[in-house]
Amino acid sequence: MNHRTPAATVGVVGGGQLGRMMGEAAGPLGVDVLVSDPTPDCPAAPVVRDQVVGDFDDSEAIRALAERVDVLTFEIELADPDALERVGAETDTPIHPDPDTLRTIQDKLVQNRALENGGVAVPAFRRVDDVDELLAAGEELGWPLMLKAREGGYDGRGNRPIDGPAKAEAAVEEIGGPALAEELIDFERELAIMGVVGESQTRAYPVTETIHEAEILRESVTPARTDDAVRARARDVAFDVLDLLDGRGVYGIELFETADGEILVNEIAPRPHNSGHWTIEGAVCSQFEQHLRAVLGWPLGATTARSSAVTANLLADVNQPQPAQLVGTDAILETDSASIHWYGKREARPLRKMGHLTVVDDDAEPDSLLSSTRELIEAVTFEYSTQPPE
Amino acid sequence: MNHRTPAATVGVVGGGQLGRMMGEAAGPLGVDVLVSDPTPDCPAAPVVRDQVVGDFDDSEAIRALAERVDVLTFEIELADPDALERVGAETDTPIHPDPDTLRTIQDKLVQNRALENGGVAVPAFRRVDDVDELLAAGEELGWPLMLKAREGGYDGRGNRPIDGPAKAEAAVEEIGGPALAEELIDFERELAIMGVVGESQTRAYPVTETIHEAEILRESVTPARTDDAVRARARDVAFDVLDLLDGRGVYGIELFETADGEILVNEIAPRPHNSGHWTIEGAVCSQFEQHLRAVLGWPLGATTARSSAVTANLLADVNQPQPAQLVGTDAILETDSASIHWYGKREARPLRKMGHLTVVDDDAEPDSLLSSTRELIEAVTFEYSTQPPE
Repeated sequence: MNHRTPAATVGVVGGGQLGRMMGEAAGPLGVDVLVSDPTPDCPAAPVVRDQVVGDFDDSEAIRALAERVDVLTFEIELADPDALERVGAETDTPIHPDPDTLRTIQDKLVQNRALENGGVAVPAFRRVDDVDELLAAGEELGWPLMLKAREGGYDGRGNRPIDGPAKAEAAVEEIGGPALAEELIDFERELAIMGVVGESQTRAYPVTETIHEAEILRESVTPARTDDAVRARARDVAFDVLDLLDGRGVYGIELFETADGEILVNEIAPRPHNSGHWTIEGAVCSQFEQHLRAVLGWPLGATTARSSAVTANLLADVNQPQPAQLVGTDAILETDSASIHWYGKREARPLRKMGHLTVVDDDAEPDSLLSSTRELIEAVTFEYSTQPPE
Repeated sequence: MNHRTPAATVGVVGGGQLGRMMGEAAGPLGVDVLVSDPTPDCPAAPVVRDQVVGDFDDSEAIRALAERVDVLTFEIELADPDALERVGAETDTPIHPDPDTLRTIQDKLVQNRALENGGVAVPAFRRVDDVDELLAAGEELGWPLMLKAREGGYDGRGNRPIDGPAKAEAAVEEIGGPALAEELIDFERELAIMGVVGESQTRAYPVTETIHEAEILRESVTPARTDDAVRARARDVAFDVLDLLDGRGVYGIELFETADGEILVNEIAPRPHNSGHWTIEGAVCSQFEQHLRAVLGWPLGATTARSSAVTANLLADVNQPQPAQLVGTDAILETDSASIHWYGKREARPLRKMGHLTVVDDDAEPDSLLSSTRELIEAVTFEYSTQPPE
């Protein structure tokens, strides 16, 4: 591997906080990042070389990116695999992960089938295109169950738990398109593993415990508060999943740990993931540096933990889009073990991820690390203005 | 302290590797950085929001910066204190450190006098404006001695050791302007301390040992391989120095440890410094994040070490300006304890700092950490092309 000038350059479709944190990881390595994003001055823009303004499926924007980079990647599932494939072929630009992997993952039904065919355990599921199919699925899988839109869902959007047949019609209407029904797993806890596929190596980070509320990730605890056998099983499952995926890069693998310690795969993200933010301070090589190394074909970094780590999201608690500031961060800045990440989003929206906080401490038990993280989070408040951003 | 959107913004006069590393530190904090630099697409440009192209003493460039930022700072002593002061007053923009501190430091004679008047030990020195004054200084201080240009020197440029009176005339001619003569210290080792002055706190990092060759910093070893009493004395001296300086920010304090363990101040830099690069991986809060916190008036970060650390500069070994790449960095990327920093300079020049390498390892003795760092450095080579950069 050579370090050179002009720099090795990575093009990223999407310029949200994940693109921003890729940019932050790229600087020290001497790697340039360019992003494409529909929002002018997207969160990544101030820390990367340049932004191309364009939708995630805008071939012209992707082409403008491809022409200036060594490799293309994406930080959002809304990236269009067809456009990526076409532009990649036309401009002879490698794309990682493989657009076909993105295509599989974008459709939750196809994703579940691919995992099942690959011998990976997933919750029982049925295809649901209408109310009758949902009622039939309920008969077979039992109520309650989870109705998921096949495409376009993220951060819990497009996922809807259903108590029983009486709610079926409203649920199908709300999802409003092709869906799948999944047995509702009465999990012991949710886990996640960040994996990375490199040119000649596959690695996985330690198992993280994820805490969701209303389908949105709130906190992660690493290492997960479960026993060694479960951790080992989760790791095995993660490597099974990574084996099924084509193309280099970091993958977020979300898991259920059932009451009897079984591991089921919930969902896969073909990109760095919120449940891996702890790796910035908590691991030797962060998931963002790792992703850059992988897509560039560089040697992978170490996935070992440096410390126990708890990450908590800073979610806007506003009702409508508004500029926001986070007030009272002194206590965080004064805490040696705490690191704040502020994504620079120009506008808060309901439950939008505005930043996150990671607290690392090798001497603290996970429970007490989680408590001290929550104390820091409770000490800050969002203030909203009715002024449009400058 | 509040985190807000649009972001808190810091303007930096100078966009070399120090400005670049400030930009890298700013991203996670949600702080925007703008730089001014005479070289279009300067090393900082790809990782900061924007670059204003203009000389370090170009009032219009500094004003263009000031109008878009909350606070102005500088990463190079060539910044013009008069221009900074004028623009700061006209645009009501705070400047840290104080331009008057910069003014004092820019003139090595004034710097030495200020330190001496403040009760800080420095090598014996005399003002030298011509050959007769140099010969008189040699009589008083003894030969050999060090002739230093009062202004404009950096990285050893402008410093010239002189054996005896026979070389005096040539030396004065070479320096070519106002100078000072200093007794040549037969030091045991050179040390450096990075200090930081915040709004209400002053802190110092652990003592670093610096290894120079031909007046250019090659390596730093932290903690310094000296005894505890010397370390404590160096720390006391550093706080004495910080007390004499006006304005918030990080200061690099270069020291001599004499054979009998006495500490003399060699030079001060009113900014993050090469001898503090180890803090990125080796300390809880890096010197770059620390500088941003200080100039913004935020709470300071912890200056405690996370680990022992050795940093080695990647210096171009070229004879004339040429594009360069660093070949064979695989071994560095594969070493868990090693972090490469590549500054993205478009052109190598003789002994130009193109990047650096830091190796951290808490279990290794400093000597062996230095050896393994040197092994990694020896495994990479610069390759130059005669092509102009793209």
